[in-house]
Parts: sequence; C-alpha cells; structure tokens
Amino acid sequence: MSHTGRERQKLLARVRRIRGQVESIERALSTESGCEQVMHLIAGARGAMAGLMAEVVQDHVRSHLVDVEKHPNALNTEAAEQLLDVIRTYLK
Amino acid sequence: MSHTGRERQKLLARVRRIRGQVESIERALSTESGCEQVMHLIAGARGAMAGLMAEVVQDHVRSHLVDVEKHPNALNTEAAEQLLDVIRTYLK
Amino acid sequence: MSHTGRERQKLLARVRRIRGQVESIERALSTESGCEQVMHLIAGARGAMAGLMAEVVQDHVRSHLVDVEKHPNALNTEAAEQLLDVIRTYLK
Amino acid sequence: MSHTGRERQKLLARVRRIRGQVESIERALSTESGCEQVMHLIAGARGAMAGLMAEVVQDHVRSHLVDVEKHPNALNTEAAEQLLDVIRTYLK
Repeated sequence: MSHTGRERQKLLARVRRIRGQVESIERALSTESGCEQVMHLIAGARGAMAGLMAEVVQDHVRSHLVDVEKHPNALNTEAAEQLLDVIRTYLK
Repeated sequence: MSHTGRERQKLLARVRRIRGQVESIERALSTESGCEQVMHLIAGARGAMAGLMAEVVQDHVRSHLVDVEKHPNALNTEAAEQLLDVIRTYLK
Repeated sequence: MSHTGRERQKLLARVRRIRGQVESIERALSTESGCEQVMHLIAGARGAMAGLMAEVVQDHVRSHLVDVEKHPNALNTEAAEQLLDVIRTYLK
Repeated sequence: MSHTGRERQKLLARVRRIRGQVESIERALSTESGCEQVMHLIAGARGAMAGLMAEVVQDHVRSHLVDVEKHPNALNTEAAEQLLDVIRTYLK
C-alpha cells in the first residue's frame, strides 16, 4: 500500500486496537468469563475488523483503481463514492 | 444503468427469480409451514439477493468508475478485479 | 410455524413489503434507472430480508427450542435473549 | 463459559490463531505490502473470527439455553440444530 505516512499510521492504530480486542477475547476465555461477555467481545472485534476493511477498501478505490498521475480526472469520483456507500452497508 | 441489453436481461432474470423466492416465503407463512422451511427459504432468497448485488456492483466497477470512451486504459483492471474479489467475500 | 395469528400477520406484512421492494428493483432495471438507485434499492431489500429473518429466528428461539407446555420454565430466557442480541448484530 | 477444559482449549487455539492473523495484518501494513495482500489478510482474519463466533454460539445454544441437569430432555435438539444451521449461513 503506497499510502502516505499519515494514512498508514491511522490503519496501524486500527489494527493495534483490534489486536487488543482479540487479546481481551483470549483473556475472557482463559478466565472462564460468561458466554455473553465472550460473544460481545467477539462481536466488537468483528465490527472493528469490518471498519478496518472498509478503510482499506476506501483507500484502494480512491488511490489504486486509477493511476492519477498518468490519468488525472479519469476516476468518476461520484460513481466511486456511490460504490463506497454500498460497500460500507455490507461492511458492518 | 446504461447496460447492454444482454446484461440487463441477465439482471432482470435474477431479480425475477428472487421475486419467485419471496413469493414462496409468503406462501410458506400463509400455509403455516414449519419454521425450518421458512428460515431456509429466507436464507436462499438472501443469498440470491447478495448474488444480484455482487453482479450490479461488478458492472458498476467495470463500467462506471471510468468513462472508457474518454479515458481508455485508465482503469487498473487488476486492482479492480482484486476489489471485486474482496467484495464477493462479503456478498455471500 | 404454529404461530399465533397476530404474529403470522406481522411476518406476512413484512414479506409483502419485501415483495414490493423486489418489484421496485425489477422496475428500476427495466427502466434503466441509474446504477446508484439500483444498488440502493437492493441494499434496502436486503436489510428488510435480514429484518424478516431476525423476526423468524426470534420466534423460533422463543417458541420452538423448548416445548413450554411440557417443560415450563426450562428455557433460560436470559441466555436466549443474549443469543438473540448477538444474532441481531449479524442480521443487519 | 462453564465449558469443559477440552472445549475451552479448542476455543483458545482458535483465538490465538486469530491473534497471529491480526499480527500479520499489522506487519503487512508496517512493511507497506500491497493493498491486495492486506485485503486478503483482513478477509482471512474476518472469516476466522466468524468461525470462532459460530463455535461459541453453538456452545451457548447447546449448553446454556436449557439447564440440562434441572431439565433433561427439555431442549428440542432438532430445533436447536436447525437454528445453528441458519446462524452458520450468516456467520461466514
């Protein structure tokens, strides 16, 4: 991902948060926490994972479908945003 | 959707099949079929709906993100197919 | 589904609304509406289908996992509601 | 989760594998791997998370909806398995 440093930092922060959530699931299982708590922790981690995917897909659509240096203005940004709207509906 | 007639016929065939599946759910509920059957019919209709969405999204990515008449070769087709692979994973 | 008449009417109303939504998708495709509109209509119908499934699953969990006439009080209703909470997260 | 030690070990092995997958995503982002690889790693971790949830939900349905010591035979196991079939369709 030839992302700018700032974008990459944002994605890394997300993935580290997810790692923390997965470690919480592990702890909950180790300490025999209730099923309810385990299911909620998994649901939370899954939501965070979906959010990370949405972010990466967004970068991919905006930055990699068209090489903007070679083809400036070729990407129909309205059509791209419509696509991202739909994808976000599924990535929840 | 400025699709070719052939693409549109394919999408219309899909949506009509889904209509038939929704009518089956209606019939199953009316005739007090078992819960299991109703749940399976809904799961089937949902899968078909996901397949329809995948098809429409695919057309959108391939045909509308870049105006190929104005910008031939601007769409990175490899990047577009990678995106569609990921989207299909979620549209199941 | 040996549901009360009232529950069945509610489910039938939902499935008829979904049929209407599927017919809108068909019309949108027939009249060559824009991709954006088609994608939004499909996303809406899919959400409604998920809502129907959530409702049927809820009835199934509350009414069919335990035969309440033979085994009153056997279903741990708290555990059942926790399960439904999790299922609803996925049925969106 | 008052699971047997064996069940818990199986769940812990799953969650540790997921932690490894999340660490791979982190590494891929740090080393500026391609978008495609990052998206595939996230899709894999998401699938594994869904599998973990399916396993926990299954234990919950089979072990906690009915207190089998107090109410042996009260859980309609056929209805429970039908429910799990449907849930697995959504947890993919």
